[in-house]
Amino acid sequence: MNIRYLSDYTIPRPSLDQGTEEQRKSVQAIIEDVRHNGDQAVKNYTAKFDGADLSSLKVEDDEMDEAVLKMDEKTWSVLNEAAANITAFHERQTQQSWMTTQENGTILGQKVTPLDAVGIYVPGGTAAYPSSVLMNAIPAQVAGVKRVVMVTPPGPDGKVPAGVLAAARLAGVREIYKIGGAQAIAALAFGTETIERVDKITGPGNIFVALAKREVFGIVDIDMIAGPSDITVLADHTAHAREVAADLLSQAEHGELSQANLVTTSPELAEAVAHEVHQQLKTLPRKEIAETAINKQSVIYVAQSLEEAVQAVNQIAPEHLEIQLENAMEAVGKIRHAGAIFVGRYSSEPIGDYFAGPNHTLPTSGTARFSSPLSVEDFVKKSSIISYSEAAFIENAEKVAHFARLEGLEAHARAVEARFSDKRR
Amino acid sequence: MNIRYLSDYTIPRPSLDQGTEEQRKSVQAIIEDVRHNGDQAVKNYTAKFDGADLSSLKVEDDEMDEAVLKMDEKTWSVLNEAAANITAFHERQTQQSWMTTQENGTILGQKVTPLDAVGIYVPGGTAAYPSSVLMNAIPAQVAGVKRVVMVTPPGPDGKVPAGVLAAARLAGVREIYKIGGAQAIAALAFGTETIERVDKITGPGNIFVALAKREVFGIVDIDMIAGPSDITVLADHTAHAREVAADLLSQAEHGELSQANLVTTSPELAEAVAHEVHQQLKTLPRKEIAETAINKQSVIYVAQSLEEAVQAVNQIAPEHLEIQLENAMEAVGKIRHAGAIFVGRYSSEPIGDYFAGPNHTLPTSGTARFSSPLSVEDFVKKSSIISYSEAAFIENAEKVAHFARLEGLEAHARAVEARFSDKRR
Repeated sequence: MNIRYLSDYTIPRPSLDQGTEEQRKSVQAIIEDVRHNGDQAVKNYTAKFDGADLSSLKVEDDEMDEAVLKMDEKTWSVLNEAAANITAFHERQTQQSWMTTQENGTILGQKVTPLDAVGIYVPGGTAAYPSSVLMNAIPAQVAGVKRVVMVTPPGPDGKVPAGVLAAARLAGVREIYKIGGAQAIAALAFGTETIERVDKITGPGNIFVALAKREVFGIVDIDMIAGPSDITVLADHTAHAREVAADLLSQAEHGELSQANLVTTSPELAEAVAHEVHQQLKTLPRKEIAETAINKQSVIYVAQSLEEAVQAVNQIAPEHLEIQLENAMEAVGKIRHAGAIFVGRYSSEPIGDYFAGPNHTLPTSGTARFSSPLSVEDFVKKSSIISYSEAAFIENAEKVAHFARLEGLEAHARAVEARFSDKRR
Repeated sequence: MNIRYLSDYTIPRPSLDQGTEEQRKSVQAIIEDVRHNGDQAVKNYTAKFDGADLSSLKVEDDEMDEAVLKMDEKTWSVLNEAAANITAFHERQTQQSWMTTQENGTILGQKVTPLDAVGIYVPGGTAAYPSSVLMNAIPAQVAGVKRVVMVTPPGPDGKVPAGVLAAARLAGVREIYKIGGAQAIAALAFGTETIERVDKITGPGNIFVALAKREVFGIVDIDMIAGPSDITVLADHTAHAREVAADLLSQAEHGELSQANLVTTSPELAEAVAHEVHQQLKTLPRKEIAETAINKQSVIYVAQSLEEAVQAVNQIAPEHLEIQLENAMEAVGKIRHAGAIFVGRYSSEPIGDYFAGPNHTLPTSGTARFSSPLSVEDFVKKSSIISYSEAAFIENAEKVAHFARLEGLEAHARAVEARFSDKRR
């Protein structure tokens, strides 16, 4: 693992994978096809890309029942506890509509309304994670979304993983389609004969899914364009090299583009972690993936002071940040950019991936500079409320008309004055 | 103005202007050029598109001072009162960081942090509105954004409108560049020699600005892709035709693509409003624009019941909704999709454009289905906080490891167990 001294190194700015021109064209063609040819186009792409020839796109109730029955008791219990934790945390995010009243009768406010319908994308294959289902569906349910639809690509046998279906049942998702890729995003955005369109699409996916989400953004809302996952551990001499290394590797096993950084004020820890990573890598089942991520994407940064270290963390704007410092909680206030902050020795990152309650859908590739974890707020929207009384109107109408004329919008001024002249009649 | 009976008419779904292939290519080329050639590229495009040959892109302090001095007392006073109202409303939107604590020592929470730097795009020419400056800059200031940058294209004389500069001074914006179009968006997203990059770009613009924002989305955040402005008035027999017509026209004068609809339970009102619109159009300075918007984009819908009318409104998902019903406030609860809701006779839409306090940057083209007015929330982001005590860890570590193995992520399980085995040593 590369060790670099921050004093003579500039942290590179991450770039966004916008796909190749060919990928973009291909995604645009799929979207147009699905938009115009509906179900048939979706089925054709499912046969082509997933190797599954489906007569019906929808997951039937008995398929869901079966999936739940298949699940062992221990797993079902852990899933339930995780779901309860996720629900409890997200319930804290719900917002109230509010109003203010003034003596002259003015009422101003903000109405919070759940979205009508959302679509959740759950990747297939080895990345078919029950945790993704919980992390996307539960905030939508807590927000009060009436229709939560899930899409996930089938295997060549036309089936979707039992764990994903069981998690969907647990999260109260009843409308599931066996479709994936750009064709699934298009079906959700525009609707087909069997799939009614939704208002927002969330959930991770490969480059085709990401490009498709970008294409339909504006027709529907999307959560974010997810890049490769990343972690940064901020540690001093009190951290335990074996634990830090294990946490770095947990992120590195996600994919070859994953990034696992250590920023430390301790050169000794830097050396020890580099050694531990090397040792622990040897016995990992996903060794090749993790090794590539560690060697190609990840860096150990050595800082001369805590200030320099914190500055580096804020420059990286990590998706996951672990603070393994002597006074870990005190450092939280210094962090300006991070998706999730894991504080102290016992807050190993996987606890947040599955169990603690906060969402695991987090801003990647430095987008924590301006993005937030997926939350209940993603599943509601707001409407402003403006109610002027006659008294409030008379008090202010002339000012509004003045402002409108200043901007050259005469009809705006006259709209106000249509009432005003009536008052003088 | 077209009158249609809802019972035998399907409201068309608005579509999103994604630009022509040529426009997209042109925008991509401009962005690449600015990204690699910085200031010089920006200056070249400013000469080419705005006809202004600038030695310095930045607005100097004395230019701002001059703009403020130029402003008459009345206008300055109205601007100040509007700014105070906008500030007061947006201060109600600020969110607190929060934490929960559990007996076993678990701390979970959500930290709210203002964005570091945002760029506000203000269109030039006849659409150079001081109100846009206030509506974009004030929420950013209330959110606590340290660096608020404004860009606006210059006229051929190299100057930007005094009203816009005065509003910027009022809103506390001190960093202003005389640049516009896709080149301004690129400069904000990637930075140049003189312009430091920002984290988010907000504000309206023409199709080139909209396409550029879409291109850089992900590198920076953007507010929304704004389409043409629209209004829907929901009215019954108690509404005043002259006032409703004037309100429709105030929206229609914005542009030929603006949409101004009436949904009413009263066929008499429908006829009367159609007549009034025709009459009032005659004397409008922006008659041609408003007439095109009324004839080509706008419809009077007649409903057989209030329920049918409300359903139509929710289908339209208007940017601005006026409720001119006998019991206007009671109907607010029925509205699922609207950017801003103006309640009752005296809540003429222009009051919200300039003065009342809620933001005038609202979701257009039916995107109120999933988008919200611009708000303080657009200028902050959140970080989750997870702090597990040793006790909490021991209680739950094994469950987390079980879940991780369920998903085939062995290194995740081992990260947790790295601490666990230490406990057993």
